[in-house]
Amino acid sequence: MGDDKTRKYVLPESEMPEAYYNIQADLPVPLPPVLHPGTLEPVTPDDLAPLFPMSLVMQEVSTEREHEIPEPVQDVYRMYRPSPLIRARGLEKALDTPAKIYYKNEGVSPPGSHKPNTAIAQAFYNKQEGVTKISTETGAGQWGSALSMACAMFDIDCTVFMVRVSYDQKPYRRAMIETYGATIYPSPSDQTNAGRAILAEDPDCLGSLGMAISEAVEVAALNDDTKYSLGSVLNHVLMHQTIIGQEAIKQMEMADDYPDVIIGCTGGGSNFAGLVFPFIGQQLRGEANARVIAVEPAACPTLTKGPYAFDFGDTAHLAPVVKMHTLGSTFVPPGIHAGGLRYHGMAPLVSHLLDLGYIEPVALHQLDVFAAGVQFARAEGIIPAPESNHAISAAISEALRCKEEGSEETILFNLSGHGHFDMGAYIAYMGGQLVDYDYPEEEIAMALAGLPVVSVEAVGD
Amino acid sequence: MGDDKTRKYVLPESEMPEAYYNIQADLPVPLPPVLHPGTLEPVTPDDLAPLFPMSLVMQEVSTEREHEIPEPVQDVYRMYRPSPLIRARGLEKALDTPAKIYYKNEGVSPPGSHKPNTAIAQAFYNKQEGVTKISTETGAGQWGSALSMACAMFDIDCTVFMVRVSYDQKPYRRAMIETYGATIYPSPSDQTNAGRAILAEDPDCLGSLGMAISEAVEVAALNDDTKYSLGSVLNHVLMHQTIIGQEAIKQMEMADDYPDVIIGCTGGGSNFAGLVFPFIGQQLRGEANARVIAVEPAACPTLTKGPYAFDFGDTAHLAPVVKMHTLGSTFVPPGIHAGGLRYHGMAPLVSHLLDLGYIEPVALHQLDVFAAGVQFARAEGIIPAPESNHAISAAISEALRCKEEGSEETILFNLSGHGHFDMGAYIAYMGGQLVDYDYPEEEIAMALAGLPVVSVEAVGD
Repeated sequence: MGDDKTRKYVLPESEMPEAYYNIQADLPVPLPPVLHPGTLEPVTPDDLAPLFPMSLVMQEVSTEREHEIPEPVQDVYRMYRPSPLIRARGLEKALDTPAKIYYKNEGVSPPGSHKPNTAIAQAFYNKQEGVTKISTETGAGQWGSALSMACAMFDIDCTVFMVRVSYDQKPYRRAMIETYGATIYPSPSDQTNAGRAILAEDPDCLGSLGMAISEAVEVAALNDDTKYSLGSVLNHVLMHQTIIGQEAIKQMEMADDYPDVIIGCTGGGSNFAGLVFPFIGQQLRGEANARVIAVEPAACPTLTKGPYAFDFGDTAHLAPVVKMHTLGSTFVPPGIHAGGLRYHGMAPLVSHLLDLGYIEPVALHQLDVFAAGVQFARAEGIIPAPESNHAISAAISEALRCKEEGSEETILFNLSGHGHFDMGAYIAYMGGQLVDYDYPEEEIAMALAGLPVVSVEAVGD
Repeated sequence: MGDDKTRKYVLPESEMPEAYYNIQADLPVPLPPVLHPGTLEPVTPDDLAPLFPMSLVMQEVSTEREHEIPEPVQDVYRMYRPSPLIRARGLEKALDTPAKIYYKNEGVSPPGSHKPNTAIAQAFYNKQEGVTKISTETGAGQWGSALSMACAMFDIDCTVFMVRVSYDQKPYRRAMIETYGATIYPSPSDQTNAGRAILAEDPDCLGSLGMAISEAVEVAALNDDTKYSLGSVLNHVLMHQTIIGQEAIKQMEMADDYPDVIIGCTGGGSNFAGLVFPFIGQQLRGEANARVIAVEPAACPTLTKGPYAFDFGDTAHLAPVVKMHTLGSTFVPPGIHAGGLRYHGMAPLVSHLLDLGYIEPVALHQLDVFAAGVQFARAEGIIPAPESNHAISAAISEALRCKEEGSEETILFNLSGHGHFDMGAYIAYMGGQLVDYDYPEEEIAMALAGLPVVSVEAVGD
């Protein structure tokens, strides 16, 4: 299908995958249990029912390899999927590398990132169970805009709690969410008990993702017609993203190629898992092999520096306790511009696979990753999201290694989104106002002091 | 190729058109001549040589039907072309119309509009003739970002004069231009005689497109290594855009359909011409028939209210005199948010075809077009550029007419770009701060007082 001119490998809509891939089916060792944040006992589906529709709760614990994508979800996917696999010929030329570089462009979705892949599915499953309202939180805004678009498609009311500092700094992201018809509040807000309590202590509080989660969860817990939705970390969220990697496998076949190295950036882990899980699945089943690299910010080095231990998923300790790489649930990462990567923990599935030896983690500084993003923009046209710049930077390093070694390897990375709503970060970078953060050793040591929340022996893992 | 589920009609790269379509070959009456702004005599290629490479000057006057697209231009096009033709199933459902609505999505280009189609071609032809620097102006910023990206691809230095009010109000657009490596000045600037003269009179001058053109032209005229580049109006610019309509014709065939109505928004005329000229060409050759609607803002009603007369292309009277629909070269349109449509004149080719009866013009108010844009975003996901909202609004009106008449017509419009850099306009709209402007009768009468610059008889037309 491809020749030496081809830039894009585009699947027809008829070739779009019709089932999600559930990597739990292929794990050599099952995932550790998820614990209730109050009792520290394994959670039951009933514990989660107030927050999520039962179909998503069941996906969370499923070990079936394939979950059919419902036709109404496929119908909305077809607005932007299959997404293109692009041969980065401009970047290869700029680097003068013998390596072949490919990237999956998830920035083509209307809100501009991979997030709609799960937002659309979650909106559908909620709608199917009669849910009329969904609440969620958003930090940088990629998730909030994806869910508000999905809710517009399925005629569901959407309430978004946006971390106040982002709400104030990113009026355009906020405007996108409102254009899709959602209601948006800066968090902490006066809409919830959690928010009011925080504001009573500090009326000028800038907010955090942990606080916004508490507000969104409270709204769902206290209102029968409202469910809660999360944009990363959970097993079902990662499973919905596997459409990325499944498409990429077909597109690499179109290109008559297979990756030697697969790269994604990791915050909660969803875009990374979406690309790499179908490839790791091939490896787990003995069908193929590739190196898999997870790229995180040096300012929030969860996978490279955090212990693999049971910890809370959120600051307020309302979310379940899971076994993951963590910097401690009270750790507040420095204010790097890749807001989507500022999470103290990691998706349990990603941590589990790292622990089993299937993933190489690497931590990068933000000046290096922005330099990579600018080089990419001038060679490939697309201005990437700051999160995606982490993956690009690692891909460039691999391509330069290939150049040094004279090795014609094939590199594949996930371009999780575009940077149109992050140009403030580029302004800061070009104006010399960005700094690299040292590893926040002391803060992390303090946040880790209380760990593990519960010992592995106590839960029989 | 399509069935009742298909959302996108995607051509493979191998089906991308390999030649531009030159409508001058099919005109029943040739274009009136272009006049020198000083002598008011027809211009010669030599008059234009200081500003443009000779290959583009010759394209300007060519009557050959096809101009081959050079392979290096096709190579860069393949980064984002062919662009998808999308069946607006969400919008059809929201309107409950029997009409079928399709749109060509030019927002998929890296800078987010149709402008790279000519920017890439112009950068190539300049490079081919040894040009190392290009100067241009930009208003809202779509053109400046497209040309700066194209110059990065062909290793040409790019200088952009951006209207000061936009430079200050749109820091993100400016950051995009700088990320691509171009040098950008707010206009009026201290970089040119024209700019310094204006600043001497009014140091706080907000600038205008006319002033920015004067600065960019001066830089090209005074420097041997620098040429000037324009993003609309000229014949060669419109011809480069015809790749849009040529792709659309093939994609309508994939859908086993043909448009009854074709719609585009008009400022200088380039995105409109790009979509409709290949279809009008079919009509001129007696091969097919469709209604063609040009949508302009009521605040700048060039085609619906302006006389068809010889006038200057710019405020400072440095640009050639052409026969076009015009509101007078000194008319400054009200500050509507569709900055790309604020031009006093029109591409001569578009005016000529309107005069010959091939185009229906319509003028719309901005509150109506923003309402259409928000409805589109909630139904189709994509948040459109304010310019494109004009085309969407007209398409919705046609679809509602079809509903009233029970008529299953096929409507095709051009989505010229996305609105990611125009969210300020959406914020103003949703906040109730946008107003409709009355027809600026008095200002236009004043601007038209000196017209025509020269009588039709005098040039023997």
